[in-house]
Amino acid sequence: MSRYRLLLEYDGACFCGWQSQAMPLPREGAAQTRISVQDTLIQAVEDFCGESVAVTGAGRTDSGVHALGQIAHLDLERQVDGLRLREALNFHLRETGVVVLEAEEAAADFHARFDATARRYLYRICNRRASPIIERGRVWHVRKPLDAGAMDAAAKHLLGRHDFTTFRSTRCQAKSAVKTLDRLDVVRQDCELRIHGRARSFLYHQMRSMVGALKLVGEGKWNGGDVAHALEARNRSACPTIAPAAGLYLEAVEYD
Amino acid sequence: MSRYRLLLEYDGACFCGWQSQAMPLPREGAAQTRISVQDTLIQAVEDFCGESVAVTGAGRTDSGVHALGQIAHLDLERQVDGLRLREALNFHLRETGVVVLEAEEAAADFHARFDATARRYLYRICNRRASPIIERGRVWHVRKPLDAGAMDAAAKHLLGRHDFTTFRSTRCQAKSAVKTLDRLDVVRQDCELRIHGRARSFLYHQMRSMVGALKLVGEGKWNGGDVAHALEARNRSACPTIAPAAGLYLEAVEYD
Repeated sequence: MSRYRLLLEYDGACFCGWQSQAMPLPREGAAQTRISVQDTLIQAVEDFCGESVAVTGAGRTDSGVHALGQIAHLDLERQVDGLRLREALNFHLRETGVVVLEAEEAAADFHARFDATARRYLYRICNRRASPIIERGRVWHVRKPLDAGAMDAAAKHLLGRHDFTTFRSTRCQAKSAVKTLDRLDVVRQDCELRIHGRARSFLYHQMRSMVGALKLVGEGKWNGGDVAHALEARNRSACPTIAPAAGLYLEAVEYD
Repeated sequence: MSRYRLLLEYDGACFCGWQSQAMPLPREGAAQTRISVQDTLIQAVEDFCGESVAVTGAGRTDSGVHALGQIAHLDLERQVDGLRLREALNFHLRETGVVVLEAEEAAADFHARFDATARRYLYRICNRRASPIIERGRVWHVRKPLDAGAMDAAAKHLLGRHDFTTFRSTRCQAKSAVKTLDRLDVVRQDCELRIHGRARSFLYHQMRSMVGALKLVGEGKWNGGDVAHALEARNRSACPTIAPAAGLYLEAVEYD
Protein backbone atom coordinates (compact mmCIF):
# COMPACT_ATOMS: atom_id res chain seq x y z
CA MET A 1 0.00 0.00 0.00
CA SER A 2 1.44 3.39 -0.99
CA ARG A 3 0.22 6.90 -0.29
CA TYR A 4 0.04 9.46 -3.09
CA ARG A 5 -0.27 13.22 -2.96
CA LEU A 6 -2.17 15.09 -5.70
CA LEU A 7 -2.11 18.76 -6.68
CA LEU A 8 -5.46 19.64 -8.27
CA GLU A 9 -7.07 22.41 -10.29
CA TYR A 10 -10.85 22.50 -10.73
CA ASP A 11 -13.74 24.62 -11.93
CA GLY A 12 -16.16 24.98 -9.04
CA ALA A 13 -19.09 25.45 -11.40
CA CYS A 14 -18.80 21.80 -12.47
CA PHE A 15 -19.26 20.39 -8.98
CA CYS A 16 -21.47 20.45 -5.89
CA GLY A 17 -18.28 21.19 -3.92
CA TRP A 18 -15.30 19.17 -2.76
CA GLN A 19 -17.12 16.81 -0.48
CA SER A 20 -19.23 13.78 -1.38
CA GLN A 21 -22.92 14.38 -0.87
CA ALA A 22 -25.67 11.99 0.01
CA MET A 23 -27.21 11.86 -3.46
CA PRO A 24 -30.99 12.17 -3.63
CA LEU A 25 -32.58 10.14 -6.41
CA PRO A 26 -33.04 12.47 -9.35
CA ARG A 27 -36.67 13.53 -9.69
CA GLU A 28 -38.27 13.77 -13.08
CA GLY A 29 -37.69 17.26 -14.44
CA ALA A 30 -35.30 18.16 -11.64
CA ALA A 31 -32.01 19.82 -12.48
CA GLN A 32 -29.28 17.23 -12.73
CA THR A 33 -27.60 16.74 -9.37
CA ARG A 34 -23.95 17.63 -9.67
CA ILE A 35 -21.24 15.34 -8.46
CA SER A 36 -18.50 16.29 -5.95
CA VAL A 37 -14.82 16.68 -6.81
CA GLN A 38 -14.09 13.90 -4.31
CA ASP A 39 -16.46 11.41 -5.96
CA THR A 40 -15.14 12.35 -9.40
CA LEU A 41 -11.60 11.50 -8.28
CA ILE A 42 -12.72 8.26 -6.61
CA GLN A 43 -14.39 7.23 -9.89
CA ALA A 44 -11.27 8.09 -11.92
CA VAL A 45 -9.09 5.97 -9.62
CA GLU A 46 -11.51 3.07 -9.96
CA ASP A 47 -11.56 3.46 -13.76
CA PHE A 48 -7.76 3.46 -13.76
CA CYS A 49 -6.96 0.50 -11.53
CA GLY A 50 -10.17 -0.95 -10.16
CA GLU A 51 -9.40 0.07 -6.58
CA SER A 52 -12.06 1.73 -4.40
CA VAL A 53 -10.21 4.38 -2.46
CA ALA A 54 -10.87 7.23 -0.07
CA VAL A 55 -9.63 10.65 -1.21
CA THR A 56 -8.89 13.27 1.45
CA GLY A 57 -8.59 16.95 0.54
CA ALA A 58 -6.82 19.75 2.39
CA GLY A 59 -9.72 22.16 1.97
CA ARG A 60 -13.40 21.25 1.71
CA THR A 61 -14.30 23.90 -0.85
CA ASP A 62 -17.98 24.77 -1.13
CA SER A 63 -20.21 24.48 -4.19
CA GLY A 64 -19.00 26.83 -6.93
CA VAL A 65 -15.60 27.54 -5.36
CA HIS A 66 -12.64 26.96 -7.68
CA ALA A 67 -9.21 25.51 -6.91
CA LEU A 68 -5.87 26.37 -8.44
CA GLY A 69 -3.90 24.30 -5.93
CA GLN A 70 -6.00 21.91 -3.85
CA ILE A 71 -3.99 19.10 -2.25
CA ALA A 72 -5.39 15.60 -1.71
CA HIS A 73 -4.05 12.21 -0.69
CA LEU A 74 -5.10 8.63 -1.38
CA ASP A 75 -3.73 5.11 -0.87
CA LEU A 76 -3.28 2.52 -3.60
CA GLU A 77 -2.49 -1.19 -3.37
CA ARG A 78 -0.85 -0.87 -6.72
CA GLN A 79 2.60 0.76 -6.85
CA VAL A 80 2.65 3.38 -9.59
CA ASP A 81 5.00 6.11 -10.74
CA GLY A 82 3.75 9.64 -9.96
CA LEU A 83 3.93 10.85 -13.55
CA ARG A 84 2.10 7.75 -14.74
CA LEU A 85 -0.60 8.21 -12.08
CA ARG A 86 -1.12 11.84 -13.13
CA GLU A 87 -1.46 10.96 -16.81
CA ALA A 88 -3.77 8.02 -16.14
CA LEU A 89 -6.06 9.97 -13.82
CA ASN A 90 -6.18 12.90 -16.24
CA PHE A 91 -7.21 10.52 -19.01
CA HIS A 92 -10.17 9.36 -16.92
CA LEU A 93 -10.91 12.90 -15.68
CA ARG A 94 -11.15 14.49 -19.13
CA GLU A 95 -14.18 16.77 -19.58
CA THR A 96 -15.04 16.57 -15.86
CA GLY A 97 -13.74 20.01 -14.80
CA VAL A 98 -10.93 18.73 -12.54
CA VAL A 99 -7.33 17.96 -13.49
CA VAL A 100 -4.28 16.57 -11.68
CA LEU A 101 -1.39 19.05 -11.97
CA GLU A 102 1.07 16.89 -10.05
CA ALA A 103 1.04 13.43 -8.47
CA GLU A 104 3.78 11.95 -6.34
CA GLU A 105 4.34 9.24 -3.79
CA ALA A 106 4.18 10.67 -0.26
CA ALA A 107 5.20 9.47 3.19
CA ALA A 108 2.85 6.77 4.50
CA ASP A 109 1.65 9.11 7.25
CA PHE A 110 1.23 12.22 5.07
CA HIS A 111 -2.23 13.74 5.64
CA ALA A 112 -3.46 16.39 3.17
CA ARG A 113 -5.75 18.02 5.72
CA PHE A 114 -4.09 17.63 9.12
CA ASP A 115 -0.51 18.25 7.97
CA ALA A 116 -1.35 21.51 6.18
CA THR A 117 0.28 24.49 7.89
CA ALA A 118 -1.54 27.13 5.83
CA ARG A 119 -4.23 27.62 3.18
CA ARG A 120 -4.11 30.50 0.74
CA TYR A 121 -7.29 31.78 -0.91
CA LEU A 122 -7.70 34.29 -3.72
CA TYR A 123 -10.90 36.26 -4.27
CA ARG A 124 -11.40 38.07 -7.60
CA ILE A 125 -13.77 41.00 -8.14
CA CYS A 126 -14.46 42.42 -11.61
CA ASN A 127 -15.05 46.09 -10.79
CA ARG A 128 -16.56 47.85 -13.80
CA ARG A 129 -19.98 48.74 -15.19
CA ALA A 130 -20.03 46.19 -18.02
CA SER A 131 -20.53 42.51 -17.27
CA PRO A 132 -17.45 40.29 -17.41
CA ILE A 133 -17.28 38.27 -20.63
CA ILE A 134 -13.88 36.60 -20.84
CA GLU A 135 -13.87 36.15 -17.03
CA ARG A 136 -17.54 35.30 -16.56
CA GLY A 137 -18.08 32.62 -13.93
CA ARG A 138 -14.59 33.39 -12.63
CA VAL A 139 -15.19 36.66 -10.73
CA TRP A 140 -17.73 38.59 -8.65
CA HIS A 141 -19.10 41.41 -10.75
CA VAL A 142 -19.40 44.64 -8.71
CA ARG A 143 -20.55 47.61 -10.79
CA LYS A 144 -19.89 50.46 -8.33
CA PRO A 145 -16.29 51.69 -8.20
CA LEU A 146 -14.55 50.20 -5.16
CA ASP A 147 -11.81 51.95 -3.16
CA ALA A 148 -9.19 49.18 -3.02
CA GLY A 149 -6.94 51.21 -0.72
CA ALA A 150 -9.71 51.61 1.87
CA MET A 151 -10.54 47.92 1.59
CA ASP A 152 -6.91 46.95 2.08
CA ALA A 153 -6.59 49.18 5.16
CA ALA A 154 -9.84 47.85 6.65
CA ALA A 155 -8.72 44.26 6.02
CA LYS A 156 -5.90 44.79 8.49
CA HIS A 157 -8.44 44.89 11.37
CA LEU A 158 -9.06 41.19 10.76
CA LEU A 159 -5.42 40.09 10.96
CA GLY A 160 -4.26 38.03 13.91
CA ARG A 161 -5.98 35.63 16.31
CA HIS A 162 -9.70 36.32 16.77
CA ASP A 163 -13.06 34.72 17.37
CA PHE A 164 -14.45 34.90 13.81
CA THR A 165 -18.05 33.94 14.71
CA THR A 166 -19.30 36.98 12.74
CA PHE A 167 -17.54 35.73 9.63
CA ARG A 168 -18.56 32.08 9.61
CA SER A 169 -21.69 30.39 8.38
CA THR A 170 -24.20 29.29 11.00
CA ARG A 171 -23.75 25.87 9.35
CA CYS A 172 -20.01 25.85 10.18
CA GLN A 173 -19.20 22.70 12.15
CA ALA A 174 -15.82 23.75 13.56
CA LYS A 175 -15.74 23.39 17.37
CA SER A 176 -14.04 26.75 17.84
CA ALA A 177 -14.45 29.99 15.86
CA VAL A 178 -11.00 31.16 16.97
CA LYS A 179 -8.62 31.33 14.01
CA THR A 180 -5.44 33.20 13.17
CA LEU A 181 -5.53 35.20 9.94
CA ASP A 182 -2.00 35.82 8.63
CA ARG A 183 -2.76 37.80 5.52
CA LEU A 184 -5.66 39.72 3.99
CA ASP A 185 -4.56 42.08 1.21
CA VAL A 186 -6.59 43.87 -1.44
CA VAL A 187 -4.75 44.75 -4.65
CA ARG A 188 -6.18 46.47 -7.72
CA GLN A 189 -5.03 45.39 -11.20
CA ASP A 190 -6.87 47.61 -13.70
CA CYS A 191 -10.58 46.82 -13.26
CA GLU A 192 -9.94 43.70 -11.18
CA LEU A 193 -9.53 43.56 -7.41
CA ARG A 194 -7.59 40.60 -6.05
CA ILE A 195 -8.01 39.75 -2.38
CA HIS A 196 -5.37 37.44 -0.94
CA GLY A 197 -6.08 35.60 2.32
CA ARG A 198 -3.83 33.23 4.24
CA ALA A 199 -4.39 31.31 7.47
CA ARG A 200 -3.57 27.94 9.00
CA SER A 201 -7.22 27.14 8.41
CA PHE A 202 -10.44 28.97 7.60
CA LEU A 203 -13.98 28.62 8.90
CA TYR A 204 -16.90 27.72 6.62
CA HIS A 205 -17.72 30.80 4.47
CA GLN A 206 -15.06 32.85 6.31
CA MET A 207 -13.27 34.18 3.23
CA ARG A 208 -16.53 35.02 1.43
CA SER A 209 -17.94 36.70 4.56
CA MET A 210 -14.82 38.84 5.01
CA VAL A 211 -14.89 39.82 1.32
CA GLY A 212 -18.56 40.79 1.69
CA ALA A 213 -17.66 43.19 4.51
CA LEU A 214 -14.67 44.62 2.61
CA LYS A 215 -16.89 45.28 -0.42
CA LEU A 216 -19.05 47.56 1.78
CA VAL A 217 -15.87 49.41 2.76
CA GLY A 218 -14.93 49.72 -0.91
CA GLU A 219 -18.33 51.29 -1.63
CA GLY A 220 -17.89 53.77 1.23
CA LYS A 221 -20.83 52.33 3.20
CA TRP A 222 -18.57 50.94 5.92
CA ASN A 223 -15.20 52.01 7.29
CA GLY A 224 -12.42 50.11 9.02
CA GLY A 225 -14.09 50.72 12.39
CA ASP A 226 -17.26 49.01 11.19
CA VAL A 227 -15.23 45.95 10.24
CA ALA A 228 -13.57 45.93 13.67
CA HIS A 229 -16.95 46.28 15.41
CA ALA A 230 -18.44 43.46 13.35
CA LEU A 231 -15.54 41.22 14.38
CA GLU A 232 -15.91 42.19 18.06
CA ALA A 233 -19.65 41.48 17.94
CA ARG A 234 -18.90 37.74 17.51
CA ASN A 235 -22.38 37.46 16.07
CA ARG A 236 -23.24 36.15 12.62
CA SER A 237 -25.97 38.77 12.24
CA ALA A 238 -23.23 41.45 12.25
CA CYS A 239 -21.96 40.06 8.93
CA PRO A 240 -23.47 42.33 6.29
CA THR A 241 -23.28 40.11 3.23
CA ILE A 242 -21.47 37.12 1.73
CA ALA A 243 -19.56 37.26 -1.54
CA PRO A 244 -20.57 34.71 -4.21
CA ALA A 245 -18.66 31.45 -4.63
CA ALA A 246 -17.65 32.04 -8.28
CA GLY A 247 -14.96 34.59 -7.32
CA LEU A 248 -13.21 32.36 -4.77
CA TYR A 249 -10.16 30.16 -5.46
CA LEU A 250 -8.28 27.80 -3.15
CA GLU A 251 -4.91 28.99 -4.43
CA ALA A 252 -2.43 26.87 -2.51
CA VAL A 253 -1.94 24.68 0.55
CA GLU A 254 1.31 24.85 2.50
CA TYR A 255 3.13 22.08 4.38
CA ASP A 256 6.31 22.06 6.45
CA MET B 1 -27.15 62.06 -37.30
CA SER B 2 -24.36 61.43 -34.78
CA ARG B 3 -21.44 59.05 -34.86
CA TYR B 4 -20.63 56.88 -31.84
CA ARG B 5 -17.51 54.97 -30.95
CA LEU B 6 -17.75 51.71 -28.98
CA LEU B 7 -15.09 49.81 -27.02
CA LEU B 8 -16.04 46.11 -27.00
CA GLU B 9 -15.12 42.90 -25.22
CA TYR B 10 -16.30 39.56 -26.58
CA ASP B 11 -15.90 35.82 -26.27
CA GLY B 12 -14.95 34.51 -29.72
CA ALA B 13 -16.47 31.11 -28.95
CA CYS B 14 -19.95 32.66 -29.03
CA PHE B 15 -19.65 33.98 -32.59
CA CYS B 16 -18.77 33.02 -36.17
CA GLY B 17 -16.33 35.98 -36.09
CA TRP B 18 -16.65 39.74 -36.28
CA GLN B 19 -18.10 39.98 -39.75
CA SER B 20 -21.65 39.30 -40.91
CA GLN B 21 -21.93 36.10 -42.87
CA ALA B 22 -24.27 35.13 -45.64
CA MET B 23 -26.40 32.79 -43.55
CA PRO B 24 -27.19 29.42 -45.09
CA LEU B 25 -30.63 28.08 -44.21
CA PRO B 26 -30.14 25.72 -41.28
CA ARG B 27 -30.31 22.12 -42.40
CA GLU B 28 -32.12 19.58 -40.32
CA GLY B 29 -29.68 18.12 -37.83
CA ALA B 30 -27.00 20.68 -38.69
CA ALA B 31 -25.16 22.43 -35.89
CA GLN B 32 -26.75 25.77 -35.15
CA THR B 33 -25.17 28.49 -37.28
CA ARG B 34 -23.57 31.07 -35.05
CA ILE B 35 -24.20 34.76 -35.48
CA SER B 36 -21.46 37.38 -35.99
CA VAL B 37 -20.50 40.04 -33.45
CA GLN B 38 -21.46 42.67 -36.04
CA ASP B 39 -24.99 41.29 -36.52
CA THR B 40 -25.42 40.93 -32.76
CA LEU B 41 -24.62 44.63 -32.30
CA ILE B 42 -26.90 45.65 -35.20
CA GLN B 43 -29.73 43.71 -33.55
CA ALA B 44 -29.07 45.33 -30.16
CA VAL B 45 -29.17 48.82 -31.69
CA GLU B 46 -32.45 47.99 -33.41
CA ASP B 47 -33.89 46.61 -30.18
CA PHE B 48 -32.83 49.79 -28.39
CA CYS B 49 -34.04 52.50 -30.78
CA GLY B 50 -35.53 50.86 -33.87
CA GLU B 51 -32.80 52.13 -36.17
CA SER B 52 -31.14 49.81 -38.71
CA VAL B 53 -27.49 50.77 -38.65
CA ALA B 54 -24.19 49.66 -40.09
CA VAL B 55 -21.50 48.81 -37.52
CA THR B 56 -17.85 49.07 -38.60
CA GLY B 57 -15.09 47.39 -36.58
CA ALA B 58 -11.38 48.18 -36.46
CA GLY B 59 -10.36 44.52 -36.74
CA ARG B 60 -12.30 41.77 -38.49
CA THR B 61 -11.53 39.05 -35.99
CA ASP B 62 -11.98 35.48 -37.18
CA SER B 63 -14.26 32.80 -35.77
CA GLY B 64 -13.21 31.92 -32.22
CA VAL B 65 -10.93 34.93 -31.73
CA HIS B 66 -11.65 36.97 -28.60
CA ALA B 67 -11.54 40.73 -28.08
CA LEU B 68 -10.59 42.69 -25.00
CA GLY B 69 -10.59 46.04 -26.80
CA GLN B 70 -12.25 45.98 -30.23
CA ILE B 71 -13.29 49.43 -31.49
CA ALA B 72 -16.37 50.00 -33.64
CA HIS B 73 -18.37 52.96 -34.91
CA LEU B 74 -21.99 53.46 -35.91
CA ASP B 75 -24.33 56.35 -36.76
CA LEU B 76 -27.64 57.06 -35.05
CA GLU B 77 -30.42 59.48 -36.01
CA ARG B 78 -31.24 59.68 -32.34
CA GLN B 79 -28.94 61.81 -30.16
CA VAL B 80 -28.01 59.83 -27.06
CA ASP B 81 -25.60 60.25 -24.19
CA GLY B 82 -22.62 57.84 -24.36
CA LEU B 83 -23.21 56.35 -20.91
CA ARG B 84 -26.89 55.85 -21.71
CA LEU B 85 -26.03 54.19 -25.02
CA ARG B 86 -23.63 51.80 -23.29
CA GLU B 87 -26.16 50.78 -20.65
CA ALA B 88 -28.97 50.38 -23.19
CA LEU B 89 -26.90 48.28 -25.59
CA ASN B 90 -25.60 46.13 -22.74
CA PHE B 91 -29.17 45.49 -21.64
CA HIS B 92 -30.02 44.16 -25.10
CA LEU B 93 -26.68 42.32 -25.40
CA ARG B 94 -27.01 40.37 -22.17
CA GLU B 95 -26.16 36.66 -22.50
CA THR B 96 -24.84 37.15 -26.06
CA GLY B 97 -21.09 37.01 -25.30
CA VAL B 98 -20.33 40.64 -26.25
CA VAL B 99 -20.40 43.72 -24.03
CA VAL B 100 -19.86 47.46 -24.54
CA LEU B 101 -17.11 48.67 -22.20
CA GLU B 102 -17.33 52.30 -23.32
CA ALA B 103 -19.51 54.31 -25.71
CA GLU B 104 -18.99 57.94 -26.64
CA GLU B 105 -19.93 60.38 -29.33
CA ALA B 106 -17.14 60.68 -31.91
CA ALA B 107 -16.24 63.12 -34.67
CA ALA B 108 -18.58 62.77 -37.65
CA ASP B 109 -15.68 61.55 -39.79
CA PHE B 110 -14.18 59.12 -37.24
CA HIS B 111 -13.62 55.73 -38.86
CA ALA B 112 -12.89 52.76 -36.57
CA ARG B 113 -11.00 50.86 -39.27
CA PHE B 114 -9.26 53.46 -41.44
CA ASP B 115 -8.27 55.84 -38.63
CA ALA B 116 -6.60 53.13 -36.56
CA THR B 117 -2.84 53.66 -36.31
CA ALA B 118 -2.10 50.32 -34.64
CA ARG B 119 -3.67 47.04 -33.54
CA ARG B 120 -2.37 45.09 -30.56
CA TYR B 121 -2.96 41.36 -30.29
CA LEU B 122 -2.28 39.02 -27.38
CA TYR B 123 -1.77 35.29 -27.80
CA ARG B 124 -1.93 33.04 -24.73
CA ILE B 125 -0.40 29.56 -24.48
CA CYS B 126 -1.00 27.28 -21.48
CA ASN B 127 2.29 25.38 -21.32
CA ARG B 128 1.97 22.42 -18.98
CA ARG B 129 1.09 18.73 -19.13
CA ALA B 130 -2.36 18.98 -17.57
CA SER B 131 -5.26 20.45 -19.54
CA PRO B 132 -6.31 23.99 -18.67
CA ILE B 133 -9.44 24.07 -16.53
CA ILE B 134 -9.99 27.60 -15.28
CA GLU B 135 -8.62 28.97 -18.59
CA ARG B 136 -10.13 26.40 -20.95
CA GLY B 137 -11.32 27.97 -24.20
CA ARG B 138 -9.08 30.95 -23.44
CA VAL B 139 -5.63 29.55 -24.29
CA TRP B 140 -3.78 27.18 -26.61
CA HIS B 141 -2.78 24.11 -24.65
CA VAL B 142 0.80 23.03 -25.51
CA ARG B 143 2.03 20.10 -23.43
CA LYS B 144 5.73 20.10 -24.29
CA PRO B 145 7.86 22.60 -22.36
CA LEU B 146 8.51 25.66 -24.54
CA ASP B 147 11.67 27.78 -24.40
CA ALA B 148 10.15 31.27 -24.16
CA GLY B 149 13.56 32.95 -24.41
CA ALA B 150 14.31 31.23 -27.72
CA MET B 151 10.83 32.12 -29.00
CA ASP B 152 11.28 35.76 -28.00
CA ALA B 153 14.67 35.94 -29.74
CA ALA B 154 13.31 34.27 -32.91
CA ALA B 155 10.34 36.64 -32.97
CA LYS B 156 12.72 39.52 -33.54
CA HIS B 157 13.43 38.20 -37.08
CA LEU B 158 9.85 39.17 -37.97
CA LEU B 159 10.05 42.78 -36.78
CA GLY B 160 10.01 45.58 -39.33
CA ARG B 161 8.64 45.95 -42.86
CA HIS B 162 8.36 42.64 -44.75
CA ASP B 163 6.34 40.73 -47.30
CA PHE B 164 4.44 38.41 -44.93
CA THR B 165 3.05 36.09 -47.63
CA THR B 166 4.33 33.08 -45.65
CA PHE B 167 2.34 34.16 -42.62
CA ARG B 168 -1.04 34.95 -44.17
CA SER B 169 -3.91 32.70 -45.12
CA THR B 170 -4.33 31.90 -48.80
CA ARG B 171 -7.84 33.32 -48.26
CA CYS B 172 -6.42 36.72 -47.23
CA GLN B 173 -7.91 39.41 -49.43
CA ALA B 174 -5.43 42.23 -48.73
CA LYS B 175 -3.92 43.58 -51.96
CA SER B 176 -0.40 43.65 -50.55
CA ALA B 177 1.27 41.25 -48.12
CA VAL B 178 3.74 43.95 -47.08
CA LYS B 179 3.20 44.96 -43.48
CA THR B 180 5.28 46.54 -40.73
CA LEU B 181 5.44 44.59 -37.47
CA ASP B 182 6.35 46.87 -34.55
CA ARG B 183 6.36 44.39 -31.71
CA LEU B 184 6.45 40.62 -31.20
CA ASP B 185 7.44 39.65 -27.67
CA VAL B 186 7.16 36.33 -25.86
CA VAL B 187 6.92 36.51 -22.08
CA ARG B 188 6.54 33.60 -19.66
CA GLN B 189 4.36 34.00 -16.55
CA ASP B 190 4.54 30.69 -14.66
CA CYS B 191 3.04 28.08 -16.97
CA GLU B 192 1.55 30.65 -19.34
CA LEU B 193 3.29 32.19 -22.35
CA ARG B 194 1.99 35.56 -23.47
CA ILE B 195 2.86 36.71 -26.98
CA HIS B 196 2.33 40.41 -27.66
CA GLY B 197 2.09 41.63 -31.26
CA ARG B 198 1.64 45.18 -32.52
CA ALA B 199 1.36 46.55 -36.07
CA ARG B 200 -0.53 49.23 -37.97
CA SER B 201 -2.52 46.33 -39.42
CA PHE B 202 -2.28 42.56 -39.68
CA LEU B 203 -2.97 40.14 -42.52
CA TYR B 204 -5.61 37.40 -42.25
CA HIS B 205 -4.24 34.68 -39.90
CA GLN B 206 -0.91 36.54 -39.58
CA MET B 207 -0.72 36.52 -35.79
CA ARG B 208 -1.77 32.85 -35.55
CA SER B 209 0.69 31.85 -38.28
CA MET B 210 3.59 33.64 -36.57
CA VAL B 211 2.67 32.02 -33.23
CA GLY B 212 2.62 28.63 -34.97
CA ALA B 213 6.20 29.16 -36.15
CA LEU B 214 7.36 30.44 -32.75
CA LYS B 215 5.89 27.36 -31.06
CA LEU B 216 8.21 25.19 -33.21
CA VAL B 217 11.12 27.32 -31.99
CA GLY B 218 9.95 26.84 -28.41
CA GLU B 219 9.97 23.08 -28.91
CA GLY B 220 13.49 23.20 -30.34
CA LYS B 221 12.37 21.97 -33.79
CA TRP B 222 13.10 25.33 -35.42
CA ASN B 223 15.59 28.08 -34.65
CA GLY B 224 15.59 31.80 -35.39
CA GLY B 225 17.19 31.15 -38.78
CA ASP B 226 14.28 28.89 -39.78
CA VAL B 227 11.86 31.69 -38.96
CA ALA B 228 13.91 34.14 -41.06
CA HIS B 229 14.04 31.66 -43.97
CA ALA B 230 10.31 31.06 -43.80
CA LEU B 231 9.72 34.81 -43.97
CA GLU B 232 12.12 35.19 -46.92
CA ALA B 233 10.42 32.34 -48.79
CA ARG B 234 7.29 34.50 -49.22
CA ASN B 235 5.40 31.28 -49.70
CA ARG B 236 2.46 30.09 -47.63
CA SER B 237 3.71 26.51 -47.79
CA ALA B 238 6.74 27.61 -45.73
CA CYS B 239 4.39 28.30 -42.78
CA PRO B 240 4.66 25.20 -40.59
CA THR B 241 1.43 25.44 -38.63
CA ILE B 242 -1.25 27.84 -37.45
CA ALA B 243 -2.12 28.39 -33.80
CA PRO B 244 -5.79 27.89 -32.82
CA ALA B 245 -8.18 30.82 -32.57
CA ALA B 246 -9.08 30.30 -28.89
CA GLY B 247 -5.73 31.70 -27.66
CA LEU B 248 -5.94 34.95 -29.65
CA TYR B 249 -7.22 38.28 -28.32
CA LEU B 250 -7.60 41.63 -30.09
CA GLU B 251 -6.25 43.53 -27.11
CA ALA B 252 -6.44 47.17 -28.18
CA VAL B 253 -6.72 49.49 -31.17
CA GLU B 254 -4.75 52.74 -31.24
CA TYR B 255 -5.71 56.09 -32.79
CA ASP B 256 -3.84 59.37 -33.04
